[in-house]
Amino acid sequence: MNLQAALFLLLSLTSALCNSNVNEALTYSDKNVNRIDEDLLQLAAIPSISSLPEHAKDIIAASQWLIDHLKSSGLENVQLLPTNAQPSVYAEWLKADGAPTVLVYGHYDVQPVDPLQLWNTPPFEPTVDRKKDMLFRGRGVSDDKGGLLQPIHAVEAFLKTSKQLPVNVKFLLEGQEEIGSPNLAELLHENAGLLKADIALSADGGQISAEHSGIALGLRGGIAFEVEAQTVDVDLHSGMKGGSVQNPIHALAQFVDNLHAPNGSVNVEGFYRGVRERTEEDKADAAAFPFDEAAEMASLGAMGPHGEEGFTTLERRWLRPTLDVVGIWGGFTGTGIKTIVPSKATAKISCRLVPDQDPVAILEALRAHTEGHAPPQTKLTFRKLPFHAQPYLMPRNTMANRAATKVLKGLFKGPFYYREGGSIPALALMKEHLGIWCTSFGFGLSTDNLHSPNERYMITMWDKGREAWIRLLQEISTEAALENASDAAKDEL
Amino acid sequence: MNLQAALFLLLSLTSALCNSNVNEALTYSDKNVNRIDEDLLQLAAIPSISSLPEHAKDIIAASQWLIDHLKSSGLENVQLLPTNAQPSVYAEWLKADGAPTVLVYGHYDVQPVDPLQLWNTPPFEPTVDRKKDMLFRGRGVSDDKGGLLQPIHAVEAFLKTSKQLPVNVKFLLEGQEEIGSPNLAELLHENAGLLKADIALSADGGQISAEHSGIALGLRGGIAFEVEAQTVDVDLHSGMKGGSVQNPIHALAQFVDNLHAPNGSVNVEGFYRGVRERTEEDKADAAAFPFDEAAEMASLGAMGPHGEEGFTTLERRWLRPTLDVVGIWGGFTGTGIKTIVPSKATAKISCRLVPDQDPVAILEALRAHTEGHAPPQTKLTFRKLPFHAQPYLMPRNTMANRAATKVLKGLFKGPFYYREGGSIPALALMKEHLGIWCTSFGFGLSTDNLHSPNERYMITMWDKGREAWIRLLQEISTEAALENASDAAKDEL
Repeated sequence: MNLQAALFLLLSLTSALCNSNVNEALTYSDKNVNRIDEDLLQLAAIPSISSLPEHAKDIIAASQWLIDHLKSSGLENVQLLPTNAQPSVYAEWLKADGAPTVLVYGHYDVQPVDPLQLWNTPPFEPTVDRKKDMLFRGRGVSDDKGGLLQPIHAVEAFLKTSKQLPVNVKFLLEGQEEIGSPNLAELLHENAGLLKADIALSADGGQISAEHSGIALGLRGGIAFEVEAQTVDVDLHSGMKGGSVQNPIHALAQFVDNLHAPNGSVNVEGFYRGVRERTEEDKADAAAFPFDEAAEMASLGAMGPHGEEGFTTLERRWLRPTLDVVGIWGGFTGTGIKTIVPSKATAKISCRLVPDQDPVAILEALRAHTEGHAPPQTKLTFRKLPFHAQPYLMPRNTMANRAATKVLKGLFKGPFYYREGGSIPALALMKEHLGIWCTSFGFGLSTDNLHSPNERYMITMWDKGREAWIRLLQEISTEAALENASDAAKDEL
Repeated sequence: MNLQAALFLLLSLTSALCNSNVNEALTYSDKNVNRIDEDLLQLAAIPSISSLPEHAKDIIAASQWLIDHLKSSGLENVQLLPTNAQPSVYAEWLKADGAPTVLVYGHYDVQPVDPLQLWNTPPFEPTVDRKKDMLFRGRGVSDDKGGLLQPIHAVEAFLKTSKQLPVNVKFLLEGQEEIGSPNLAELLHENAGLLKADIALSADGGQISAEHSGIALGLRGGIAFEVEAQTVDVDLHSGMKGGSVQNPIHALAQFVDNLHAPNGSVNVEGFYRGVRERTEEDKADAAAFPFDEAAEMASLGAMGPHGEEGFTTLERRWLRPTLDVVGIWGGFTGTGIKTIVPSKATAKISCRLVPDQDPVAILEALRAHTEGHAPPQTKLTFRKLPFHAQPYLMPRNTMANRAATKVLKGLFKGPFYYREGGSIPALALMKEHLGIWCTSFGFGLSTDNLHSPNERYMITMWDKGREAWIRLLQEISTEAALENASDAAKDEL
């Protein structure tokens, strides 16, 4: 028997043993499903909104809940990693000798909830109903409290049954993803030793639909800023002065309107610098992706797609940088009418960026554009807002992607390889500071109302996620062993 | 002695007697100045904001204060004239046999006070300082609580001294001027008999400056509406959907930006229908008017004038219709950033109209424009707002204008004949329903921050107004007698 044959025999024996561990963990997870559901309800009840200073204490409460929960799940070295703002939570289990080390990423902060009156149930009184609608409801149940609990529950299921994990695991759960992770780079840099791993897995992400799975190879980056237009010192009487001085709302509308060219492209010099040309593989991925555009537009209440000419809807989301005004205000916004010429108006703007745009350069291009395009008799003030994410694009064929593909194939159609329109700054930062690629492995859906009222999480996806994470930890171990065996065989041949 | 000579002798004797009454009234007014000041502080302390439903009780409190005060001033038949919303206050003194009857108009409602943080003193804790800054401060001290108290104090001064007035007087003090007097037409129509008079005088108005007086022959009318842009049912994640569906803020900005042509004119079909051509007399009035444009722009904090090409600043305010967005809002307007594509955005818009535009037709033109100019993939909804004022233009040479000219000549430079950019719907409505022209006789200044934070009223103007109203009541009586004498002489000749 040569070395190659011996290695494959060993792998088979190991595999049988591992399958038994996986099955025990799955059984444990199913038996404890009511308590596992309850964990999500408890964590989602904490209003850990990172963008609103008045919720700072809830950020702390959520991080403390996680620390307690990670400890009772059997994880070790559980600790808070402080930053200048919201802290991250760390935990580890490192007793799988010879197996790879996996860094699991997630975030425990959530989006704001306004407009509150549009919620059908109170956002921080989460509910679950396994009998009728099969939904969790509440802010954060999908993004990302539901997501981050799945790998924790998977680890618990192994440690409470076979007392061991197939791989070494480290958790990094951050509290400022929804505000663009402003302190994460520093945290990764300072804790690079503690966080050292072979691969990363993100528990913040989603599948394509309840039937179709996918592996997101890329994410858009982003930046944000606000522009304030001021024309006079105080609000004026619209009768006495109207029509004879510049109106800052008119000026801001003109500025905003001119940010896009008639063909839908962003009309700012330097904005497209670095954007990669669309490849044949990009086009093929977009064409293969299961997507019913008409059905989606109908579900959004949109009259139809709208965007940059010459690109399909998926290409616009995956491959093209975009600019959106996310909020605008100025003048009198109460009931009835107040006949004024207001003194100022403000717009908050966010951009989504793609490889290889440089967020810093794009922000400067927008600052220069703002400074150079003030409407007549108008003072425009540019202010950076705290959102900064590098665009991200990983290779297709990594060990983690192969393992994830195997797991997803067993539970869904697919997986399809695609890109996400959203931003998870952590992925690019982990590549930069820890040198590892990150595979997204989450089970939210685009219909979960992630940043909108009435956020929800489908119980079928939550249950598949519970199973998938248990299987994934094992598959990574198997893939790593295969890779080692293959490398060893190559060495011998 | 022929009839003409006899009439003029009689007039001279009457005049001497009248001068004695005027002097007594002026002395009374000066002696009681501290209590008169206190009246304004009391009335201005009542937050009678007509546009905010939560202040409905304050409207009632202010009207009740006036009823008590009119009674104690010696006026008769004092009563509330109810409407479907804010009531008017009525009072009369009709014992000047043979003299004309004067209807005095004013309003006791005030503008909202937001943004509250820009006020240096609490808006409804009015103050007066006759020692240092010579200012009243507080919402309504100028517009129009200071204004309406002057004729009441003038009447009181006559009735408490000579026990009689030179003319018959009726007061109509309304409570909804700042929301466009929506119920005044019906009230005038229903009370046309009670309110019958020979001339009207408005205590809501101002002078050109502390040195220069003026008689406003015209006022702009106005209408208001709001436009809501909606593109999707709920706010969406700007990463997942950004750049692939229409953004309602972009759509609304485009709609607002296109409301004006590059030359500053309003870009709405039918908007200029009925606008009178500028005459040589219009140009001469504007050129003669004391106006330091550079100084005014500096005082407003404006970089310079801005408006319709081909017209001067005064012509833009007096002779040209205008359109101003008075408020805009949509999406996330809190601290920080929320990365959404919002579902809707709204703009409140008010127009100022000039003779002979028809407000109803203009509103319909704007509705048709809105319905015909929805940006791509956008639903625009048009809603009328409660502001409707007919443009107003009165003849130069009326009995009341001649009397006012004499009084103003004695107290100021001028008067100059001009037009106001603002709207006082009551003037056009009194012409329509009572058949009388109205002379504006107020003492506010454009620097009083009328619809802005830190409203104020100069004590020198308040004091001149006290004197001017006493003199005006007498001059009207004299002018009427002269007119009668002249008519009688003409009959004889």
